[in-house]
Amino acid sequence: MNDIPRTGVTRELARFLVESRWNSIPPHISHEAKRALLNWTGCALGGCRDETVDTALAVLSEFTGRPQATVLGRSERLDILNAAALNALGSNILDFDDTHLRTVIHPTVPVAAAVLALTERSPVTGAQLLHAFILGVEVECRVGNAISPEHYNAGWHITATCGVFGAAAACAKLLGLDMQKTAWALGLAASQAAGTTGAHGSMNKSWNMANAARNGLMAALLAAKGFTSTEQALEGERGFVRVFAQRHDLDEIVRGLGKTWELGQNTYKPYPCGIVAHPFIDGCLALRRESSVAPDEVEHIELRVHPLVRMLMGNAAPRIGLEAKLSVQHCAAAALIHGEVGVREFTDACVNDPAVIALRRRVILVEDPAMPKEAAGLSVRMGDGSTLDKYVPHATGSLERPMSDEALERKFRALAEWGWPECDTHAFIELAWSLDKLDDAGAFARAAAAR
Amino acid sequence: MNDIPRTGVTRELARFLVESRWNSIPPHISHEAKRALLNWTGCALGGCRDETVDTALAVLSEFTGRPQATVLGRSERLDILNAAALNALGSNILDFDDTHLRTVIHPTVPVAAAVLALTERSPVTGAQLLHAFILGVEVECRVGNAISPEHYNAGWHITATCGVFGAAAACAKLLGLDMQKTAWALGLAASQAAGTTGAHGSMNKSWNMANAARNGLMAALLAAKGFTSTEQALEGERGFVRVFAQRHDLDEIVRGLGKTWELGQNTYKPYPCGIVAHPFIDGCLALRRESSVAPDEVEHIELRVHPLVRMLMGNAAPRIGLEAKLSVQHCAAAALIHGEVGVREFTDACVNDPAVIALRRRVILVEDPAMPKEAAGLSVRMGDGSTLDKYVPHATGSLERPMSDEALERKFRALAEWGWPECDTHAFIELAWSLDKLDDAGAFARAAAAR
Repeated sequence: MNDIPRTGVTRELARFLVESRWNSIPPHISHEAKRALLNWTGCALGGCRDETVDTALAVLSEFTGRPQATVLGRSERLDILNAAALNALGSNILDFDDTHLRTVIHPTVPVAAAVLALTERSPVTGAQLLHAFILGVEVECRVGNAISPEHYNAGWHITATCGVFGAAAACAKLLGLDMQKTAWALGLAASQAAGTTGAHGSMNKSWNMANAARNGLMAALLAAKGFTSTEQALEGERGFVRVFAQRHDLDEIVRGLGKTWELGQNTYKPYPCGIVAHPFIDGCLALRRESSVAPDEVEHIELRVHPLVRMLMGNAAPRIGLEAKLSVQHCAAAALIHGEVGVREFTDACVNDPAVIALRRRVILVEDPAMPKEAAGLSVRMGDGSTLDKYVPHATGSLERPMSDEALERKFRALAEWGWPECDTHAFIELAWSLDKLDDAGAFARAAAAR
Repeated sequence: MNDIPRTGVTRELARFLVESRWNSIPPHISHEAKRALLNWTGCALGGCRDETVDTALAVLSEFTGRPQATVLGRSERLDILNAAALNALGSNILDFDDTHLRTVIHPTVPVAAAVLALTERSPVTGAQLLHAFILGVEVECRVGNAISPEHYNAGWHITATCGVFGAAAACAKLLGLDMQKTAWALGLAASQAAGTTGAHGSMNKSWNMANAARNGLMAALLAAKGFTSTEQALEGERGFVRVFAQRHDLDEIVRGLGKTWELGQNTYKPYPCGIVAHPFIDGCLALRRESSVAPDEVEHIELRVHPLVRMLMGNAAPRIGLEAKLSVQHCAAAALIHGEVGVREFTDACVNDPAVIALRRRVILVEDPAMPKEAAGLSVRMGDGSTLDKYVPHATGSLERPMSDEALERKFRALAEWGWPECDTHAFIELAWSLDKLDDAGAFARAAAAR
């Protein structure tokens, strides 16, 4: 696939961005954009009081320019570059963001953070915001498709490295850049593509998101003023695609542009933990609901898992919340005890709750290579000798069983309650669903500003 | 070499940075630091009115925070992050910066830009500035050594990707960070390492330098406030060295730390053009000086060149200054006509001067694989049938024939004259040579501030 010569990819992509019209976006894609933005603002509100955000804010506030834009859920206002950075950072902290499954990109984080900040500086309508966001996600995921799976496997933090292109593309569209300047914006984005997964497990992970959003916005702002770059950022001999992935397919970037939409492949997490645990959580919640399982009557819980599940999420004795996010045993126990699995179930307090520890110890993993990776088999053995069985072929939030609009609203409310309890969630949710009708898109960000 | 397991490299490097004392720096290295900084400030002053700087400033000034630090040669003051970015940008524009030959890193640009801005915010002595700068260059070049030549050959802009480590290390030292925070600063630097050579030939090239300086400074500022990262940024499985170079040698980063000094391998350019043309310029200037060659009496100039010289710099008919920087023919003609080869000789005006064009057309390249790459053979055939011959084994500015302190002073004066004629060059040069005696290192940057 590396042998197909492919020239002009960057310019072709730039032309698509410039020529795309709002009325050419299919209705289900513009609705998906609202869902993505509702989900994302929820994640940002949920994370907005995290120590990571506080620490970054303590640094950035010394250097911020004019208070142009909202830090979601907080009263601080920063210049748009720093606001984009902070909101990308905060929205990624809970590991609750959306996923483009083919590339494992969390598409909304960098694009939404950049474009939302820009709406508070350069007035645009809600439809323009949605349109730019959709195009940004399109660019981000197509660049990701071109270098997957090689790129992520080599150690790159793909949401950061591809997100900067998405942010640049979306901001270029909002700023109304012409084709040449749009190509330059993509070139300046390529120059700032950065981040490996080597820092995962520390605050640094979410900082990669901050950079992607900020630098993508910066790329568009520079290009807008005539700061020049290459026009072969993607396909060039020393361009992004060749340098960042030994195996790649440039055609993925332009094939079917305007006909297929990557946002249609977006998925949302109902639970803030590793995705392979999700069907097991679904199963436990269903058993609890359907059969009123009392945790202290459970003798043991047998989970039939694909071997990958143990490898990725087999931590039998997590000590802190971050470790529990990678423990399917904890997920199952918490689901049975609490009847829900939200941010609270991954606090250190919940992880060390004696009742949770006791039940978690009675969770047994049985590896079965014949189990599909995305499925869950559960068998709960009760003290009276009876067993309750459950098989979940696809988890809530998968492409096969997408979260409903109502479920996304519930998720938003729970996250807002967690990070910014003063939020008027009803009004905000209404605003999200009517984004395409907004005359001033900046109202969306401002509705998430604390007083 | 990839098979040698090497752990703890980042912590070892962090320990070295923390434990290094000023009195352990050899005198010739601290003197070299002054030479590097004098050369670098000259480059920054020479480039400070360039369109690239004006354009970047037009963008950044909307978002800059408090006016903390100097933009060299200009009256604008920016927050230290933006000042670091702008000064790195401006100092790289003329392609006149120093070179660490083994890696082709231009070591001073990102490190000096970051650390100089910081001195205007966090008071330190001149000795502390020199010390931090020396350590920053050490880290930057050692990281470069570990991944050379693989990394640059793969398309990476090595001064940017390694420079961010140098800037972070130097700023961590100036801020007095402990070992853990220094390791985090290196981790945050790794996360922001970016830039390929794909955008060379546009403004974007120097923007890579701006990012390296700014992001290295940012990494140290974040770590100082407790923003966490990995402590295996360099050696980790998905750390910088493995992800950014397929072939690498981690041992290069720590072997002989504190015993050998990379700054001792630094070189300075006497002429702002591709380095392989330098011995030819030396030869032409010597012939003009020694034999008073009158250009219009020259029938032709024969240059005996290693084949690489034609490949890299064989443009016989450059149309603009940027192209002339890669034309050994232009370099030879301009040297014979003007008796000097500075920034002026690479303006579009000089490139299109009829006298220069006429002589440039009479420059003949004769390839000779037996010629050393770093040498020049010249034979000038005069109208009267006589010939003047010259052989230059090593150019001025090579490690074998380093530029003298006086030559660096002349270069500084010429660059200041070009970009900021109001500069009190005498006072500034005095300040540079007495940097180790300065109580407040910030005075150095302020001396380069326009009113």
